[in-house]
Amino acid sequence: MTLRVGVIGTGMIGRDHTRRLQQVLAGAQVVALSDYSPDAARAVGADLAPDAKIYDKGEDLIAASDVDAVLVCSTGATHEAYVLAAIAAGKPCFCEKPLATTADGAKRIVDAEVAHGKRLVQVGFMRRYDAGYVALKSAVDTHTGAPLMVHAAHRNPAVPEQYVTPMAIHDTFVHEIDVFRWLLDDDYVSARVTFPRATSASHAALRDPQIVTLTTAKGVVITTEIFVNCKYGYDIQCQVVGEEGTANLPEPQAITMRLGAKLQNDIMTDWKERFVASYDVELQDFIKAATAGTAAGPSAWDGYMAAVTCDACVTAQDADGAAVTITNPARPALYS
Amino acid sequence: MTLRVGVIGTGMIGRDHTRRLQQVLAGAQVVALSDYSPDAARAVGADLAPDAKIYDKGEDLIAASDVDAVLVCSTGATHEAYVLAAIAAGKPCFCEKPLATTADGAKRIVDAEVAHGKRLVQVGFMRRYDAGYVALKSAVDTHTGAPLMVHAAHRNPAVPEQYVTPMAIHDTFVHEIDVFRWLLDDDYVSARVTFPRATSASHAALRDPQIVTLTTAKGVVITTEIFVNCKYGYDIQCQVVGEEGTANLPEPQAITMRLGAKLQNDIMTDWKERFVASYDVELQDFIKAATAGTAAGPSAWDGYMAAVTCDACVTAQDADGAAVTITNPARPALYS
Amino acid sequence: MTLRVGVIGTGMIGRDHTRRLQQVLAGAQVVALSDYSPDAARAVGADLAPDAKIYDKGEDLIAASDVDAVLVCSTGATHEAYVLAAIAAGKPCFCEKPLATTADGAKRIVDAEVAHGKRLVQVGFMRRYDAGYVALKSAVDTHTGAPLMVHAAHRNPAVPEQYVTPMAIHDTFVHEIDVFRWLLDDDYVSARVTFPRATSASHAALRDPQIVTLTTAKGVVITTEIFVNCKYGYDIQCQVVGEEGTANLPEPQAITMRLGAKLQNDIMTDWKERFVASYDVELQDFIKAATAGTAAGPSAWDGYMAAVTCDACVTAQDADGAAVTITNPARPALYS
Amino acid sequence: MTLRVGVIGTGMIGRDHTRRLQQVLAGAQVVALSDYSPDAARAVGADLAPDAKIYDKGEDLIAASDVDAVLVCSTGATHEAYVLAAIAAGKPCFCEKPLATTADGAKRIVDAEVAHGKRLVQVGFMRRYDAGYVALKSAVDTHTGAPLMVHAAHRNPAVPEQYVTPMAIHDTFVHEIDVFRWLLDDDYVSARVTFPRATSASHAALRDPQIVTLTTAKGVVITTEIFVNCKYGYDIQCQVVGEEGTANLPEPQAITMRLGAKLQNDIMTDWKERFVASYDVELQDFIKAATAGTAAGPSAWDGYMAAVTCDACVTAQDADGAAVTITNPARPALYS
Repeated sequence: MTLRVGVIGTGMIGRDHTRRLQQVLAGAQVVALSDYSPDAARAVGADLAPDAKIYDKGEDLIAASDVDAVLVCSTGATHEAYVLAAIAAGKPCFCEKPLATTADGAKRIVDAEVAHGKRLVQVGFMRRYDAGYVALKSAVDTHTGAPLMVHAAHRNPAVPEQYVTPMAIHDTFVHEIDVFRWLLDDDYVSARVTFPRATSASHAALRDPQIVTLTTAKGVVITTEIFVNCKYGYDIQCQVVGEEGTANLPEPQAITMRLGAKLQNDIMTDWKERFVASYDVELQDFIKAATAGTAAGPSAWDGYMAAVTCDACVTAQDADGAAVTITNPARPALYS
Repeated sequence: MTLRVGVIGTGMIGRDHTRRLQQVLAGAQVVALSDYSPDAARAVGADLAPDAKIYDKGEDLIAASDVDAVLVCSTGATHEAYVLAAIAAGKPCFCEKPLATTADGAKRIVDAEVAHGKRLVQVGFMRRYDAGYVALKSAVDTHTGAPLMVHAAHRNPAVPEQYVTPMAIHDTFVHEIDVFRWLLDDDYVSARVTFPRATSASHAALRDPQIVTLTTAKGVVITTEIFVNCKYGYDIQCQVVGEEGTANLPEPQAITMRLGAKLQNDIMTDWKERFVASYDVELQDFIKAATAGTAAGPSAWDGYMAAVTCDACVTAQDADGAAVTITNPARPALYS
Repeated sequence: MTLRVGVIGTGMIGRDHTRRLQQVLAGAQVVALSDYSPDAARAVGADLAPDAKIYDKGEDLIAASDVDAVLVCSTGATHEAYVLAAIAAGKPCFCEKPLATTADGAKRIVDAEVAHGKRLVQVGFMRRYDAGYVALKSAVDTHTGAPLMVHAAHRNPAVPEQYVTPMAIHDTFVHEIDVFRWLLDDDYVSARVTFPRATSASHAALRDPQIVTLTTAKGVVITTEIFVNCKYGYDIQCQVVGEEGTANLPEPQAITMRLGAKLQNDIMTDWKERFVASYDVELQDFIKAATAGTAAGPSAWDGYMAAVTCDACVTAQDADGAAVTITNPARPALYS
Repeated sequence: MTLRVGVIGTGMIGRDHTRRLQQVLAGAQVVALSDYSPDAARAVGADLAPDAKIYDKGEDLIAASDVDAVLVCSTGATHEAYVLAAIAAGKPCFCEKPLATTADGAKRIVDAEVAHGKRLVQVGFMRRYDAGYVALKSAVDTHTGAPLMVHAAHRNPAVPEQYVTPMAIHDTFVHEIDVFRWLLDDDYVSARVTFPRATSASHAALRDPQIVTLTTAKGVVITTEIFVNCKYGYDIQCQVVGEEGTANLPEPQAITMRLGAKLQNDIMTDWKERFVASYDVELQDFIKAATAGTAAGPSAWDGYMAAVTCDACVTAQDADGAAVTITNPARPALYS
């Protein structure tokens, strides 16, 4: 049985997911495309899915009787409405991050899904599908004992002028927020932000680097360096310290060379390469669950918790080093 | 357009490739299955390809009008006949190694394909599709200068009693034979085998370890340790030494842990895990080429050259350390 | 010319330094020994320095006309008086840490040395002489750009019951305090202590692990995990993050083995091994400067600044995560 | 008690050993210097050992009643005569490699020492004192099981025009010859040399690289790449493969940096840095044994065996890939 998928939003990521469904993964077929620019949707269709029907409105795509499941890849501000529509239609829905642009919006999706009574939504937190994080979680669950601390870094070579201080949370650190909740199976209770000496490579509206300290309900302290103008490369580091020992996220595979008096490996500079393989696994998981009429992986609740935590971190950016409390609402049974 | 594939041989690898085509890769569908035990074929069909037709004879599967391409996964002794039949039928054919059990048999396939005038055969040398070897080839082509030497090791934790000395060539070293021809874009001119002190973990009919030295037409000397009772793990090592520097095949990704006074990574012990991802890429390549009516990747010529080289290495095992000359026949234009 | 040295305190470290001067290093000779237990001094003399005179009182040793320089290796509470006596006698003096048990005591030594007008005191912060830290400082000074952050860890497998929370600062973290001031050529302006979930391997009077955050005058944020019941080994980690890149303290040299399905290196478990080579270099430096009538390396000022910083960190341990300000007195010209 | 040492030959290494004895190590004093250029000896004396007496003839230095022990650091052709003179005088003698320029010459020294009845000679094979090789030997003796193979490389960035093919054995590989005999506690029975494609960085009188294969009495096969124009650095690699696993010689300590899209360590380019610390340990061992009137470490027998093995390897360079037998004379009891 082939899952008939409609894709809303045919920009970079929407186009890439269409290619993935058409040319890489088994079990799905893109039968419908929509974009705020119908020409863009038509162009992607012509390239990758010639039989797909083009819809002017995402809502019509969602409602189409031959669409079994929906991918929401449009701009963030439109996510909430599309996801709510998919839930209303009872159709499995993969939504790129953010689930909604506000915690309240994410909460409305959670409420709708809970009312529906069955999971339909998967949020695009792809790191949970990265082979390195999956292996790290296994090591933490089986070898290193009760987790006590996490030391992490999220580094990017450079960002443009329009990238301002809060974006380090919403666009960058949000990945750590989700993946560490999953890795530790824990919730956050406080956030603190510290600003070291700024790099001269940053600009006026961006304090860079910053160090975010999250504390979990179980007391784990997670210290993450966010450094988006680090110059040298795109680099994601993570060490979990448990009662018995430590485990590190592996480096991406690279060729070790001895050249010119240096023992050397390349470091990636483009974030798009770092987790590229995990997108395949993520959508594979979506296809499998959606074919059974439900959703797996990162849930609407996870999207909501990420939004709540982001808000606390942004508040903490202006709290002069003080800890900001994070209040966790009761978790509905659907997500237990 | 979906490629309609028939699979001959539904043992371990045939079953796994069927799963791959049905559940993992895009663009193909298994429509026919055959095995010397029709019940085995039926069982695989029931599990993985319920719509596939079961054939008692592989020849009939190859001839079936709704089969576009063939996978030969049966026992080695049957490969030659099936591949020749596929060529005769003008159908793309993926053949697990060995292409034939003798160099003469492989030569007959080459002759048939040359007579046909177009490539139809891909041999299952999956290492060429391993991300590590692909990256190594890129490093060698662009950074380390003219290759002069390769230092390699092929280690396996243990082998059963029926594994005898020549199998270290035909079943084990054959992978290095093919992948180094490809990596260096070169041909072999001589082989030498040396036997170090034998491990006490081996048995009477197996001299283990052994060191095979291949010399190429360009003069590159490749020294490979073959050690199939090394106890500690399945481990494939390779360093290319060029005029400008060296490049190493990367280690498989693993979690580095600090535990019990040791900094440690797991090493694999099961060969089936080591190149598992490359099977996906290999078949993807086959689907793509076969959909266009031809074949890519390791060719019948490569399979023939591997057979010729294996024969020389086995001769060298009995030559008391002397070098055995490898004569390379002229390469047909089809494979240039 | 051979430097004639008197050693006060012949316990573990005093005995070891006596051996070093007598049997390992060039240019010095131990001519006098003293201990609160004269029998202990005699025993060390008999073993290692048979010609050394035994003094009942350290003050008499310092005053002896044939003693050119003094090593203070006695219990911490006695350091201040002996060092002041050495300054009064105008003799170069190597003092094991702490320089004094209080910041005020260290200040009195600074004042005495400043009044004397020439450096005579070297404090036993041996890490500055470790080849790894020396190479790290060189990398930071020349390659990684302006330092912005330091991520560090000081881990010890286990501590006894009498080790209580403040000792994590005075006995353990004091080494990081000194070595990072030197590494960054900077002063501290604030300290914060956070307590993650405690390890079950600790005991009632010790909160373990703890995370100390120091901020420097230039704005560098140094985050150090102190974990003295980490079980797995004695492990000192440090990464400096600068505007251009990062540099790591090297791991101690170890043999990489492939054994039993693990790629593995030993990790030390005994702190005494980790910096053992640096004691030789440290005393070599003392001999050289003392032979010229002065002192080099970590100064009384460095010892004082370490004491001031330790006090702030201990205060911060009880400040519930708030930052504690560190006030730096004006640096006398002698130490500029 | 201070050992009174006379140094013959005050070129680069003689000067450096004089500095070592005078300024670094305990227990020795340079009281006599000699060089074929007395002015050179006087200059070294003025710099490093002002009280040393200058001798025009090394024989007179050896005979001097206030000289307890001798260092032979003169040009290789003079070693045999000086060492024989030291033995005749009954004085401990440290001789830089080679012990003699011919195997016969080395044999005469062995015979003289055996006739004397006590070890007096230490040969300057410093690698046995390198911390990395010492740790490797310990790992091999205790963890990796019976040794079966060694894979090694000796690489140097570039050599001058006067460096010709046999020098790759006598000046370069001789270090591996000695250190592997010691590491494996074994003797060589055959040598084979293979020449891969030559690097374009070499010159007419030097075939570079070359691969030397030594087989030991116990059957261990040692494959060593010698590549003296490898361009990228001075690099000594060694992996021992035993029945239970493998152990590698550690890389020299280096700072890992992340800079400019590369994870990188410096590799040394100057061979003089690689084993610099081992010279200290080597001479410390000489001082200790010589003070007791004898010698330890690499013996005259080891020097003789190295010479015999070098001769076989040079013969093998012209044997077109054939193995050359190495005949081991009976080992005198003095060296058992």
